[in-house]
Amino acid sequence: MSAPAAPPAEPRLQGVRDALRSAGLDALVVTHLPNIRYLTGFSGSAGAVVVTDARCLLVIDFRYLTAGRTLLDRREDQVLELHLAEGSLDGSLVALLQAEQVRRIGVEAAWMPVGRFNRLAARLSPAEPGTEAAALLVPTERLVEQGRLVKDAGEIAILREAARRLSDVARQVRDHVRPGRTEADVAADIDDAMRRRGFERPAFETIVAAGPNGALPHARPSDRVLQADDGVVLDFGGVYDGYCVDLTRTLQLGSVTAEFRRMFEAVAEAHAAAVATVRPGVRASTIDAAARAVLARHGLAEAFGHGTGHGLGLEVHEEPRIARPVPGVADAVVEPGMVFTIEPGAYVADLGGVRIEDDVLVTPDGCDVLTRVPIEL
Amino acid sequence: MSAPAAPPAEPRLQGVRDALRSAGLDALVVTHLPNIRYLTGFSGSAGAVVVTDARCLLVIDFRYLTAGRTLLDRREDQVLELHLAEGSLDGSLVALLQAEQVRRIGVEAAWMPVGRFNRLAARLSPAEPGTEAAALLVPTERLVEQGRLVKDAGEIAILREAARRLSDVARQVRDHVRPGRTEADVAADIDDAMRRRGFERPAFETIVAAGPNGALPHARPSDRVLQADDGVVLDFGGVYDGYCVDLTRTLQLGSVTAEFRRMFEAVAEAHAAAVATVRPGVRASTIDAAARAVLARHGLAEAFGHGTGHGLGLEVHEEPRIARPVPGVADAVVEPGMVFTIEPGAYVADLGGVRIEDDVLVTPDGCDVLTRVPIEL
Repeated sequence: MSAPAAPPAEPRLQGVRDALRSAGLDALVVTHLPNIRYLTGFSGSAGAVVVTDARCLLVIDFRYLTAGRTLLDRREDQVLELHLAEGSLDGSLVALLQAEQVRRIGVEAAWMPVGRFNRLAARLSPAEPGTEAAALLVPTERLVEQGRLVKDAGEIAILREAARRLSDVARQVRDHVRPGRTEADVAADIDDAMRRRGFERPAFETIVAAGPNGALPHARPSDRVLQADDGVVLDFGGVYDGYCVDLTRTLQLGSVTAEFRRMFEAVAEAHAAAVATVRPGVRASTIDAAARAVLARHGLAEAFGHGTGHGLGLEVHEEPRIARPVPGVADAVVEPGMVFTIEPGAYVADLGGVRIEDDVLVTPDGCDVLTRVPIEL
Repeated sequence: MSAPAAPPAEPRLQGVRDALRSAGLDALVVTHLPNIRYLTGFSGSAGAVVVTDARCLLVIDFRYLTAGRTLLDRREDQVLELHLAEGSLDGSLVALLQAEQVRRIGVEAAWMPVGRFNRLAARLSPAEPGTEAAALLVPTERLVEQGRLVKDAGEIAILREAARRLSDVARQVRDHVRPGRTEADVAADIDDAMRRRGFERPAFETIVAAGPNGALPHARPSDRVLQADDGVVLDFGGVYDGYCVDLTRTLQLGSVTAEFRRMFEAVAEAHAAAVATVRPGVRASTIDAAARAVLARHGLAEAFGHGTGHGLGLEVHEEPRIARPVPGVADAVVEPGMVFTIEPGAYVADLGGVRIEDDVLVTPDGCDVLTRVPIEL
């Protein structure tokens, strides 16, 4: 266990309690680990949190007892109680929910597997008909996530520092991208540089995609040896104090073709247009449209197959989604304190790919670009 | 996308089809990524597989079109069909299931979130009563996992090679464990060494736990500087060609106390006893009991709080579970071709911890220890 600063629980818990009340629920069982960490500061690999109007119980097993006690000692708000699971976690959860006499119990439907849901529901329902009305498990969505959408001051400080460190790594990494080295070599250098710059781990599998591989947005580093005139897409991110940052630059080794340079300049222009669009009140899809319009004007509409960005925080892909509007999926209205990527790209088979990605923090009148690395081929 | 050798699909699919028939199901929707990879060789980050008696359809989005086509080209068995999702993956899944006219459709209950299950079920049921009977979504467990329990020749070859490489890393890493360096420094060295030895990525967050931190089985590498007389637990694993291996050694810097040496020797004896117990026909819990009995004889029963081992394969924790029997949880009977860890440990507050972990392959008359690193303080 690391010892991150315990987050301020009260405002975060208050958001969940307000949501519980609106939904007519007596309790929420939080099982998604990033949500557990957000509410309590606990960063173990197993556990659950039960939030009721009066209590916030962190349920852990013996492996995390020391970590849990340390967490409680570090908290000053005393809103968190520790509950050690005897036997299985879910057995303890059921006993605890029954002891709390809660009736309508929300679970996180986006994360709880249907098998676990069914088993918990069966254990919470009395077997004999005619006995007292059973507790009801209610699927809920986004009760914790909606709070995570806007970062608080502590989170912003961590993300700023993380982006500063990731920018250092990006500047330093240029030296390692040389003909004769493999994509996998360069990826290993990047991961190593991130660890040495204080990141806990890569936020995702580092992408080093050279030459034609650049045309695959989700390429994995291969044993391909970098060639003298390759364009190279470098996309990497790190987890710092629990929070994820993410950065992409595209470099050119040797001489560049006019065609590749045009593509690079179009993506750079799309990136700048999207960043310029970010301010409170705009829809996420409007930012996406700004990038897309530039690429379309350069004849690259079809070459840009993914969304313009994604939220960053305790997860490397979280809300808001900066993309084309999709029926039934939230198109966020941008607010100060949101942090997300801007990462337009263009991918053309045989020619290769270009992607340029920065992380932005929405401010009252626009945005701060948190990652600071020159945008040049 | 990397280009792993396409696995032999027919026997793997046959296992799923037999299970479908036993369960009275017309189709299985596979959404757990390691299971998708096991059945098809596809290793992207999103997708689904629909298995019916006649067909095996890999549903992917445009990002993976090139990868999917390459996969099909490399397969010689022609049992796999590619289905490009138009719009959302689940929308395409529903349309495909309706076109196939399957009625009883299994889903993977251990992995599919209840929210997704409910949405899919609603879309598969006609809204008006009196219309034709709807397709029914049925929670299933272990339809693919039970096949993954025993590795085939190709998987064993990969795991052997991976264990050989991880052993090289372990031998080489000893030089980096020196007083004055931090736990995090050593962890970064290990991760870097794994990458350079051909691993795609660490299989889990590398553990370097020195001195009293060794007493926490799930310690994370901290900024603690290694001291002259620290015991140090090093637990790391890598993913090689998609498959996970895992290894732990405990080292002593400087001079060792008699107490720590006794603990080390007890754990080494427990490790040897467990390895000696592995052969076809024994229960997984019998292997666990062998390790536990040795530690109990040394007065360390309470100091060994976790299970003796876990299966290895496309996931770093999979079946079989080598641990105390738990009601309602399978206690596997060991079979040739199973691959799992043997990792007893002892953890004593203030004194520190010892864990020794190797990976074993069950053979017709015992087991091969795949990881080969001297067991010495």
